[in-house]
Amino acid sequence: MAFPPIAHPGRIEALRARAADAGFDGVLVTDLTNVRWLTGFTGSAGALLIAPDAATLVTDGRYRDRAADEIGASGAAAVVSVGFTQPEQHQLLLDAAGGLAHIGAEAASLTHRRWTTLAADLPIADIGTSISEGRRVKDAGEIARIEFACRCADAALAEVAPMLGDGLTEADVRNELEYRMRRHGADGPSYDTIVATGPDHAARPHHEATGRTIVEGDTVIIDVGALVDGYHSDMTRSWVIGEPTDQHTELYDLLLDVQQAGLGAVAAGVAAREVDSACREPLIEAGYGDWFLHGTGHGVGLQIHEDPFESRVSTQTLVAGDVVTVEPGLYRVGFGGFRIEDLVEVTDGGCRVLTRFPKDTPCPPSRPTT
Amino acid sequence: MAFPPIAHPGRIEALRARAADAGFDGVLVTDLTNVRWLTGFTGSAGALLIAPDAATLVTDGRYRDRAADEIGASGAAAVVSVGFTQPEQHQLLLDAAGGLAHIGAEAASLTHRRWTTLAADLPIADIGTSISEGRRVKDAGEIARIEFACRCADAALAEVAPMLGDGLTEADVRNELEYRMRRHGADGPSYDTIVATGPDHAARPHHEATGRTIVEGDTVIIDVGALVDGYHSDMTRSWVIGEPTDQHTELYDLLLDVQQAGLGAVAAGVAAREVDSACREPLIEAGYGDWFLHGTGHGVGLQIHEDPFESRVSTQTLVAGDVVTVEPGLYRVGFGGFRIEDLVEVTDGGCRVLTRFPKDTPCPPSRPTT
Repeated sequence: MAFPPIAHPGRIEALRARAADAGFDGVLVTDLTNVRWLTGFTGSAGALLIAPDAATLVTDGRYRDRAADEIGASGAAAVVSVGFTQPEQHQLLLDAAGGLAHIGAEAASLTHRRWTTLAADLPIADIGTSISEGRRVKDAGEIARIEFACRCADAALAEVAPMLGDGLTEADVRNELEYRMRRHGADGPSYDTIVATGPDHAARPHHEATGRTIVEGDTVIIDVGALVDGYHSDMTRSWVIGEPTDQHTELYDLLLDVQQAGLGAVAAGVAAREVDSACREPLIEAGYGDWFLHGTGHGVGLQIHEDPFESRVSTQTLVAGDVVTVEPGLYRVGFGGFRIEDLVEVTDGGCRVLTRFPKDTPCPPSRPTT
Repeated sequence: MAFPPIAHPGRIEALRARAADAGFDGVLVTDLTNVRWLTGFTGSAGALLIAPDAATLVTDGRYRDRAADEIGASGAAAVVSVGFTQPEQHQLLLDAAGGLAHIGAEAASLTHRRWTTLAADLPIADIGTSISEGRRVKDAGEIARIEFACRCADAALAEVAPMLGDGLTEADVRNELEYRMRRHGADGPSYDTIVATGPDHAARPHHEATGRTIVEGDTVIIDVGALVDGYHSDMTRSWVIGEPTDQHTELYDLLLDVQQAGLGAVAAGVAAREVDSACREPLIEAGYGDWFLHGTGHGVGLQIHEDPFESRVSTQTLVAGDVVTVEPGLYRVGFGGFRIEDLVEVTDGGCRVLTRFPKDTPCPPSRPTT
């Protein structure tokens, strides 16, 4: 797939300006997701030092060619240590930071030991979470990757969902989904695929797939996403194997209504906790408040869980370009569970749903007849 | 698979004794791999506070049942926060630590922000890396899991290696390997499978699989491992597609000799850097010193890279029960590359090779004739 470029140019300059407003004359970026977002660098080791007139990526010799290829458009320049030693890389950071007086650094991601080593030689102070928050608004290149990741998961699930009644285990279903997402173009799964089935497993929001065979009468929750060029997708669909009972139908319809209400609440300018309330309050009113064991959603991008978070305690407001999930669920040991989750792009007037897989019924799709 | 149990009982007591020798009356374990090694807990959030007369795992409500199931044998008890809030979990840790005067904590894994929060209320000091080093010696239950992981990777590679000349891409090969390891019983790959082919990609030790099609004349490096119940395996095999040239044969044979020399150097009581020298010196002598771009090996267990490390700068001595790789390689743009890697258990007299896949020739195996 050829995707539109990601708009790396300008991101470093914008961060430099925000940091200057907060009194910092330099920024040390050590969270590798933030380094990637700012520069395009995909290596597994490196730190970015942003000074008023230069931005320097310090990495090691393994990434000499890759760093030069990847970060050119961002305006950063790479320097590599020939060896892999910490003292050598530490010295390169000191060289890049020469003369700076007040450097913002990421206390929430640096280890205490590394912070202590850096603080002995550099005037660092906690810059807070503003760099990660800067990743929230996705550009066209980022949205294109996330949408293609959604298509990979949609296509894999369309192939696998008709097999659910065929005597497969949870692990079989996970394996087929992950294999097929890649065949449809994904780089891999965006997280460990959840296949939670039956009266106990489907009642656990974070169940891991096991050797349990799926049988008639089970509820089945499948939470699956694809990874494409560093960007994630996230969706959940739920079904009943065989004929749904009245309770199955009632709870599925309730949950679908609630999820649609959540989607309806999403728009730029809305408090993220209002999206949570739009799902949670009708469930409480229907007497199922304590069946809903988690928050309503989260941002998705270079990380599978990132800002903003839609929960009861969220203080964030949605903005256009946020990509978030809406995923209420119902769980009870003995019954099992349902969760319905779409990924959406927040827009000024509402949202654009990126997930396309149908969700209108708790009955799994049949095999296409040809 | 039913494996022998892992010997969790006694691990907490042994750590408590080591910590007491270093002057600590308590230990706060926050690295989740270390928490798992000490208690068996597999959740994704939690901290273990070890006091003289109790060990308390603080986690959240998602893991109430799982924690109780998993940690019983270790002697630790779980307390769970009902909400997910940091202040609530912080208070539970303070309760568990009441009266302690000098608590060893993991400065190399805690973030600086969390360290600062904890240090405001608890007398913590850096305990160094002794907890992770305690994971080095594997017991029978751990070895059984690692060996089974080796078998899963062996079996998958035996199916896929005969297809290498069939016009597959690097990504196709990776996908088939990861799918088939799971069909043979693995929980998943133990790291992103490396399939590095041809004059450029095979010359990069950390290449990621791409859409490049494998063609006649390519060198092919496949680095693949399986994950089984939290334990990893790691192996690399290298081949030439079609008829090897004289240079291919000469370098493959040289590398195989060197790798065997590395295996021959492994034994309890040997300095880890001697294993590196056993591989590196003959390569330097043959004029290929600068074709070998990395260290000779590393420990493998609950992490794919863990102590001990066999490199030029290593100061560690091998002990019986260490599980380490021996993996010299040769890389040159234009030529491509070869790497040969086995996983071994260190014994008193030498080592036991856990990898079984053949490595005697640079020609891929043919399909079995039936």
